[in-house]
Amino acid sequence: MNVELVTVGTELLLGFTVDTNGAEVGRACAAAGIRLVRRTAVSDVPADIRAAVAEALDRTGIVITTGGLGPTQDDATKAVVADLFGRPLVTDPDVAQSLEERARRMGRWPMAASNRTQAEVPAGATVLPNPRGTAPGIWLEDPAGRIAILLPGVPREMRGLLHEEVLPRLGQRVAGAARVVRSRTVRTTGVAESTIADRVGPLEPDLAPLTLAYLPSVDGVDLRLTAWDLAAGDADARLAAGAGRLRDAIAEHCYGEDEADLAAVVLEMLRARGATLAVGESCTGGLLGARLTAVPGASAVFLGGEVAYADAVKIDRLAVPAELLAAHGAVSEPVARAMAAGARTAFGTAAALGVTGIAGPAGGTPEKPVGTVWLAAQWGDAARAVRVVFGGDRDEIRARAAQGALNLLRRLLAGA
Amino acid sequence: MNVELVTVGTELLLGFTVDTNGAEVGRACAAAGIRLVRRTAVSDVPADIRAAVAEALDRTGIVITTGGLGPTQDDATKAVVADLFGRPLVTDPDVAQSLEERARRMGRWPMAASNRTQAEVPAGATVLPNPRGTAPGIWLEDPAGRIAILLPGVPREMRGLLHEEVLPRLGQRVAGAARVVRSRTVRTTGVAESTIADRVGPLEPDLAPLTLAYLPSVDGVDLRLTAWDLAAGDADARLAAGAGRLRDAIAEHCYGEDEADLAAVVLEMLRARGATLAVGESCTGGLLGARLTAVPGASAVFLGGEVAYADAVKIDRLAVPAELLAAHGAVSEPVARAMAAGARTAFGTAAALGVTGIAGPAGGTPEKPVGTVWLAAQWGDAARAVRVVFGGDRDEIRARAAQGALNLLRRLLAGA
Repeated sequence: MNVELVTVGTELLLGFTVDTNGAEVGRACAAAGIRLVRRTAVSDVPADIRAAVAEALDRTGIVITTGGLGPTQDDATKAVVADLFGRPLVTDPDVAQSLEERARRMGRWPMAASNRTQAEVPAGATVLPNPRGTAPGIWLEDPAGRIAILLPGVPREMRGLLHEEVLPRLGQRVAGAARVVRSRTVRTTGVAESTIADRVGPLEPDLAPLTLAYLPSVDGVDLRLTAWDLAAGDADARLAAGAGRLRDAIAEHCYGEDEADLAAVVLEMLRARGATLAVGESCTGGLLGARLTAVPGASAVFLGGEVAYADAVKIDRLAVPAELLAAHGAVSEPVARAMAAGARTAFGTAAALGVTGIAGPAGGTPEKPVGTVWLAAQWGDAARAVRVVFGGDRDEIRARAAQGALNLLRRLLAGA
Repeated sequence: MNVELVTVGTELLLGFTVDTNGAEVGRACAAAGIRLVRRTAVSDVPADIRAAVAEALDRTGIVITTGGLGPTQDDATKAVVADLFGRPLVTDPDVAQSLEERARRMGRWPMAASNRTQAEVPAGATVLPNPRGTAPGIWLEDPAGRIAILLPGVPREMRGLLHEEVLPRLGQRVAGAARVVRSRTVRTTGVAESTIADRVGPLEPDLAPLTLAYLPSVDGVDLRLTAWDLAAGDADARLAAGAGRLRDAIAEHCYGEDEADLAAVVLEMLRARGATLAVGESCTGGLLGARLTAVPGASAVFLGGEVAYADAVKIDRLAVPAELLAAHGAVSEPVARAMAAGARTAFGTAAALGVTGIAGPAGGTPEKPVGTVWLAAQWGDAARAVRVVFGGDRDEIRARAAQGALNLLRRLLAGA
């Protein structure tokens, strides 16, 4: 089954808004065996909306629109598509009632007259209830089987309607042996793309028909396996087997799949050991603590941290010996190790991390260029330190340093 | 002048990639007086690319494409558009030479045969040099004045070619009195959208023909003024005057314009006073320090911080009296004030911030629901504390708390 998407909004064409709905619809359709074959963005101008929707219906037969369903004059999608299907707009009593209830509940009573227009739907349309907002989705179908599905532009509302109302209805029309596009991502960090390629490249013929993409980011290199046009069960079985083979091949560099977060992985490893964690960070300036405390429930493991940005703070609050700083400089192995050990002692934890580096843009030297970071991890009496020169700008260097510190502890805990 | 954009890439339609190029092209065109009237995304399939480009040329006459210029089999844009214009592909000696020089410089010699295809351009095309990558941009024009401009899909390369090669050339063809769409954004935080509307709403008739949009985010409410279809000089003059009127109306709630960052604003206020800063943070867990140290040169002002996630750390490392915690709980005015005062003493700074709250999803009570945060600021002997109940999920509450703390200090320093 092929569909097209028409996203409506002058803000999209002016670039004030990035069209994330487009990616969301594409991904969800592909995973459900529905192929998005074209995406068109037009402004709020009724003639432009009408042309784009009419062309999509002629070309592909099924069109999803996002945007232009609100109560203001700019919102033209509903009227335009109703007219295109030759249907008048009529007030839907159920929608009118739920709008009124919502307005009372939110203390916006009496309801603005403009909001009442949101209860108008094209005659004969199926109303798709939108519990997350005021504008319902609308499903319009003509005797020739052409379908227009109108969704709001607010991403949260669009997503809910897509998954709860639209895809199940379209799915019923997809042949039993629907062929899907699905992917699964194995996440690695702390390893060069070329090293992964050396290990994983030889597997690629065996993985076929799955394809493999290398996706580098500040978190590391993700490996995305994709099943193209396979039956859903076959796709899932091949993806599971393929992901297993990739994980075996890259072993110690893999920290999870899909949305896995390394901070959550490390916290869980410590929680399983009944252990606590503290950090001492300089160039990351709090980012490492922020990564850890972004995980709900972090307080069971993470007690706190010292942001030791100034050297005096490293000495006074983390007991880094002034002689070490004088002899080796703040960005050095002895100082990183002393920061981790100092954090462990100061906070009384089982595990600790230390991070010190040069995030730039200034401060680099020939011996210690911008991007140079020393990372140290301590777990009981075991300690490890590593020097890395990270690429990228200040933000990227800091993000990579936080991820690198977490990975050092992950590997220390795993006994790698 | 109207143009269309065709973005090429199966990954775009599958939603593996979000189309940021589309927003970038729209924004840059509008600011230059060029109207992007439609944006179409198609897969790598040559017939789909051909149809989209041909339709755009028929409809609008000028089309920019992004993507599909690389050396692999998937990259079909160049061949398809050359064929559409009835031009053969010929090797451009200058491009071939620069590709060879680049390959030698990067140690990729001998060059892969597939890379040589990147030196092929449609006969009669203008080559747009791309110093950031291997695929040059291509400008094709037929006797009827129809123009196709092919750009690579890599955002950094696309952006460079757009601003350095494409917009200057299109600009020459725009009438002298080109009418532009430009905007200017006044940033506020710590104030409800309705309060802003009360103050700013009465100005709207005077601001016309500029329009005003309220854009709420975790950072606060941005006010975007937009000039539509005005001559460039008129637009800029009206935007400057309008932004000034908005700033006067919202006075103490405004911290800057456009890309202004509140952490940088606060650091600059302190730097101008020769003062230093420390933080004591609980629910933000390092995020406040991370915000401050994201600013290059922060070390001139920010000495460090205590991530006091556990209560014992608040007592041991920030000298928060255990009795206060027992009597009022960790999320309370006395504890927030004690954290700020403790950080100021511990780090020996002139200014300090304290943050303690319930980021959720668990931990809320009827009296202190999820989102409850106490913020405290100290500047010399002056201190201030405020309780806020932030909306949103864990990430949003934490981000709003960090922004709120910075704003409290900004206002304390400004003597508001």
